[in-house]
Amino acid sequence: MTTQFRGVYPPVVTPLTADKEVDTASLKRSLDRMINAGVNGVFTLGSSGEVAFSTDKRRAEIITAVVEAVANRVPVMVGCIDTETNRVIEHAKVAKELGASAIVATAPFYALGGMAEVEQHFRLIHAAVPDLPLFAYDIPVCVHTKLPGDLLVKLGLDGVLAGVKDSSNDDVSFRFLVDDNNKAGHPLTLLTGQEVVVDGAYMAGADGSVPGLANVEASAYVRMWNAYETGDWATVRKEQDWLAALMRIVTVTSGVQGFGAGVGAFKTAMTLLGTFDTNQMPDPVQPLGLENITAVAKVLKECGLDLVRTPEEVAATTSA
Amino acid sequence: MTTQFRGVYPPVVTPLTADKEVDTASLKRSLDRMINAGVNGVFTLGSSGEVAFSTDKRRAEIITAVVEAVANRVPVMVGCIDTETNRVIEHAKVAKELGASAIVATAPFYALGGMAEVEQHFRLIHAAVPDLPLFAYDIPVCVHTKLPGDLLVKLGLDGVLAGVKDSSNDDVSFRFLVDDNNKAGHPLTLLTGQEVVVDGAYMAGADGSVPGLANVEASAYVRMWNAYETGDWATVRKEQDWLAALMRIVTVTSGVQGFGAGVGAFKTAMTLLGTFDTNQMPDPVQPLGLENITAVAKVLKECGLDLVRTPEEVAATTSA
Amino acid sequence: MTTQFRGVYPPVVTPLTADKEVDTASLKRSLDRMINAGVNGVFTLGSSGEVAFSTDKRRAEIITAVVEAVANRVPVMVGCIDTETNRVIEHAKVAKELGASAIVATAPFYALGGMAEVEQHFRLIHAAVPDLPLFAYDIPVCVHTKLPGDLLVKLGLDGVLAGVKDSSNDDVSFRFLVDDNNKAGHPLTLLTGQEVVVDGAYMAGADGSVPGLANVEASAYVRMWNAYETGDWATVRKEQDWLAALMRIVTVTSGVQGFGAGVGAFKTAMTLLGTFDTNQMPDPVQPLGLENITAVAKVLKECGLDLVRTPEEVAATTSA
Amino acid sequence: MTTQFRGVYPPVVTPLTADKEVDTASLKRSLDRMINAGVNGVFTLGSSGEVAFSTDKRRAEIITAVVEAVANRVPVMVGCIDTETNRVIEHAKVAKELGASAIVATAPFYALGGMAEVEQHFRLIHAAVPDLPLFAYDIPVCVHTKLPGDLLVKLGLDGVLAGVKDSSNDDVSFRFLVDDNNKAGHPLTLLTGQEVVVDGAYMAGADGSVPGLANVEASAYVRMWNAYETGDWATVRKEQDWLAALMRIVTVTSGVQGFGAGVGAFKTAMTLLGTFDTNQMPDPVQPLGLENITAVAKVLKECGLDLVRTPEEVAATTSA
Repeated sequence: MTTQFRGVYPPVVTPLTADKEVDTASLKRSLDRMINAGVNGVFTLGSSGEVAFSTDKRRAEIITAVVEAVANRVPVMVGCIDTETNRVIEHAKVAKELGASAIVATAPFYALGGMAEVEQHFRLIHAAVPDLPLFAYDIPVCVHTKLPGDLLVKLGLDGVLAGVKDSSNDDVSFRFLVDDNNKAGHPLTLLTGQEVVVDGAYMAGADGSVPGLANVEASAYVRMWNAYETGDWATVRKEQDWLAALMRIVTVTSGVQGFGAGVGAFKTAMTLLGTFDTNQMPDPVQPLGLENITAVAKVLKECGLDLVRTPEEVAATTSA
Repeated sequence: MTTQFRGVYPPVVTPLTADKEVDTASLKRSLDRMINAGVNGVFTLGSSGEVAFSTDKRRAEIITAVVEAVANRVPVMVGCIDTETNRVIEHAKVAKELGASAIVATAPFYALGGMAEVEQHFRLIHAAVPDLPLFAYDIPVCVHTKLPGDLLVKLGLDGVLAGVKDSSNDDVSFRFLVDDNNKAGHPLTLLTGQEVVVDGAYMAGADGSVPGLANVEASAYVRMWNAYETGDWATVRKEQDWLAALMRIVTVTSGVQGFGAGVGAFKTAMTLLGTFDTNQMPDPVQPLGLENITAVAKVLKECGLDLVRTPEEVAATTSA
Repeated sequence: MTTQFRGVYPPVVTPLTADKEVDTASLKRSLDRMINAGVNGVFTLGSSGEVAFSTDKRRAEIITAVVEAVANRVPVMVGCIDTETNRVIEHAKVAKELGASAIVATAPFYALGGMAEVEQHFRLIHAAVPDLPLFAYDIPVCVHTKLPGDLLVKLGLDGVLAGVKDSSNDDVSFRFLVDDNNKAGHPLTLLTGQEVVVDGAYMAGADGSVPGLANVEASAYVRMWNAYETGDWATVRKEQDWLAALMRIVTVTSGVQGFGAGVGAFKTAMTLLGTFDTNQMPDPVQPLGLENITAVAKVLKECGLDLVRTPEEVAATTSA
Repeated sequence: MTTQFRGVYPPVVTPLTADKEVDTASLKRSLDRMINAGVNGVFTLGSSGEVAFSTDKRRAEIITAVVEAVANRVPVMVGCIDTETNRVIEHAKVAKELGASAIVATAPFYALGGMAEVEQHFRLIHAAVPDLPLFAYDIPVCVHTKLPGDLLVKLGLDGVLAGVKDSSNDDVSFRFLVDDNNKAGHPLTLLTGQEVVVDGAYMAGADGSVPGLANVEASAYVRMWNAYETGDWATVRKEQDWLAALMRIVTVTSGVQGFGAGVGAFKTAMTLLGTFDTNQMPDPVQPLGLENITAVAKVLKECGLDLVRTPEEVAATTSA
């Protein structure tokens, strides 16, 4: 039975300077804030950590900065996201060298294939870095393959996978996966990538969560997790309700979509709150503009958070 | 604030005789069993009620049989499912005449269109039967349109919609819909069509559920609902866990898919349990065969249910 | 080897009066125009014939009006489009009684299933009306199932299907289907539902076409067909180029989509050209407004067609 | 008006040795064969050139080997395929340094976004390597974005794009794109990625083709192109018919799908014909096994090609 990597593992949003370099000072500030709030670990270079936008050099910079800032206080999971096996293995070896506690890989993408290729993909990655726990990242919205529960449990029993980060938005499959994993002796640590229905995932028996919104406000996710551990469902629900209200920062924007809307709102909120210095986004994405920043600020205030910058000040941070 | 149609509203599975006529005796038996278990109402001619397979004459037979068997003990919602507005309105008028308490309609399907057509569709249906509460049935897997939350709340505030049956399997959208509905003064009754993550929907604040599995075992859904009403989350979770285990009847079959696997397993379970006389399916779908019936029986026994027929006996019911 | 139903079979667009009744005078005018242009037959109650929008009574009206207006000059294929088998069979029997030369049915839709259900569906329809040629209508954009070539040829060899109307927009599959059909002795008549790449379908060896745009201008499709029959590819290409330019009536509109844009543009063009009396659309779809009518008129003029109504006059036809 | 890069540009399939290294001898043999057959250029590191499976080091090896083997006889287009802008730009700079005549990039993928990001993506790539012609690679099956014709023509007029490789399998859009490009003064060279409906693309006015099947048999594509240039449509059709029959090598396999079936069949055919030394595939894909190799061999023989290896000999090449 696996007990590693349980709890709250925020996917770390990567702060940029106005000229689109990694802002290590803001990154450290954000990591300190999350660790001080009590998160159980962090996950860097996930989808919201702009892994797809970062060159290999940039990825190494980010891993290095996160590992240094975390300084062994909590485990650091590292996303090794690329199209097919050999490219992923290269990232995995770098991650290992730079101090990753575990690595996270999706199904292969871009080229078309079937489940035989998916299974072989995970087996080869594990074989290449056998001493690093490997998490499967189930994110069909990005890779257009849904990882089947029976394959995941089988790879868990075979020692290939240590766990799953479920970003499939398919809560029915997730519940069945939790059940199958329990029946199999719990070989996998099962983390939900949800943000506003984490309570449901906990009801289902998740081993933890990887909520992007925790970059904005980790303490509520920590309180929700602790309440779950003690069976205090009323608190679980109360925290989730507040976090769902806060998550509206990603739905109040207009004229933007996908990564630009979601991570754009996270960065904007973190800049309004003083954690980040800018809401800069990686090419080819634009940062949120004044109207959208104002909409995000309104949500934060409605949720009772104190802003240290005005929307105008945030808008000015990327034009510097 | 709407309080009508709260609670557990099973979508009624339609029993057939071996020669594919409506089996009114089994239907009455099933409805009595669900009503005696304490369901708050029933929904006939939903997707699992084989509305798409039934001619207009057959649909009228089913409504009539359900309304008679229910005998005003609980409300009867009636699915008015067809491709476009005028066809739906015809069904709505029949449903009204035959005693429906409310009607349920999906977004238009088959022809391609946009949200302007969806909105006009619901407005015209309501205008045609203004005194019958109208529920929107959000089921993108069948109609390939996801109903947006802001449109639903707007149609609620305008008095067009009385509620929503959410079968979208998008629990994030559902949580935001619940929240928006509350902010708007709760014009809509919001029912989840989920079966194994109803606990999550209750955490989100659903007004009730429409679980097909309640045809097999309604009492656990009633107990879950009552526990939710009193804030007893431990019981909510316990009941949901048992129901999730029971729901495995739809995943243990092989060689079948979609309606044939899902409703096929419900009918098979109900025949094994003695509620239905056969597990017959409508053309062009085949009933589950012996191997699959045996797999369903195994799940029922693991869940502690007593079978009154053997798999062989069930297999024989459709070859009579 | 099947030679029936070869050539140009326009799907008949259904004209409505301003108050949304069937406009039989315009319908006769349009059919006369197409038959005089030399089409080999017509197909009524296809997707563009607003089958999905028409009640059963309306469908019977349309079939009757078309059969009467055609008066045995050419064959009349009739669309029998509905969700599942028994509903389709009812339409098929009506079509037969009202004088259909052949019937056209899609894969089942709304309920989920697999290829076993698709095959049984076509077998049962044919068994119910064995003396009427049955065409499979391959239109995944509406029914979300692609009919596989090997199944189609098998059903052709078994005498279940007489042909296929291919609206799959998958020209690779179509070419392989033509090839497989030839190898099997040509049991199927293969008609393409394309409008602007009919030349490619003829290169592939199609037995004919079912182009909605022929309602606007049938003679060019007839010339293209005749050129194809004599191997005059330069003429095939010239006619297709002109028709592709004319087809821009469906892409120049704005603020509308799907059926409202496509059939809306056809009806508008036919009203500008004097064939139809209005560009009225069935509920819940709006007719094209003045701005879009003007855009359609511009395309018609650029293609050298003479308009008998101004855009303003067309816009006025639905507000009468 | 652009006239560069017209004609037949095969996407180069990458031969591997049994131990999965680049087989430069087979690669040279294949390139010589295609160039001697008269192709107008080649495209390396396309989807079928296993770009997604190749590490950066491997990609550089392949470009280098292709450029050396081609030795300026024809232009070499190079695929710069990666998730987002900055990663693509890195590949573009390498391609330039290694001697690419032009580069080819898809829409961004993995992260979700909109058309604003797509446009900015191509603009930034062009700005980074302004002196290299940039082709947009429209391949929604891999990147899940369809490039709109109006955006492509606009980027052509702005000097950002030199052309388009259309692998969208949407022949209607392609015909409209050709037409819009002509109206705009032909800023773009438009190449179809089709294999069995190239005749239709030529009817539509394509400037050339990029058929993977040309690796197996380039001369027929060259003859088809030359016939198209002289308006000899009967020959265009005859060649296409033969090539469609040959393309069946990708549909006769079983138990494999996607890249493994398609490129697997190409490599197998080339090994049977003596061009490649093995049919080895990149991780995590398996090479075709004996049964599938035999099926491919049967198609080649039916098409009149002479095999230099037996299926058993080909099967033995990867187990060496």
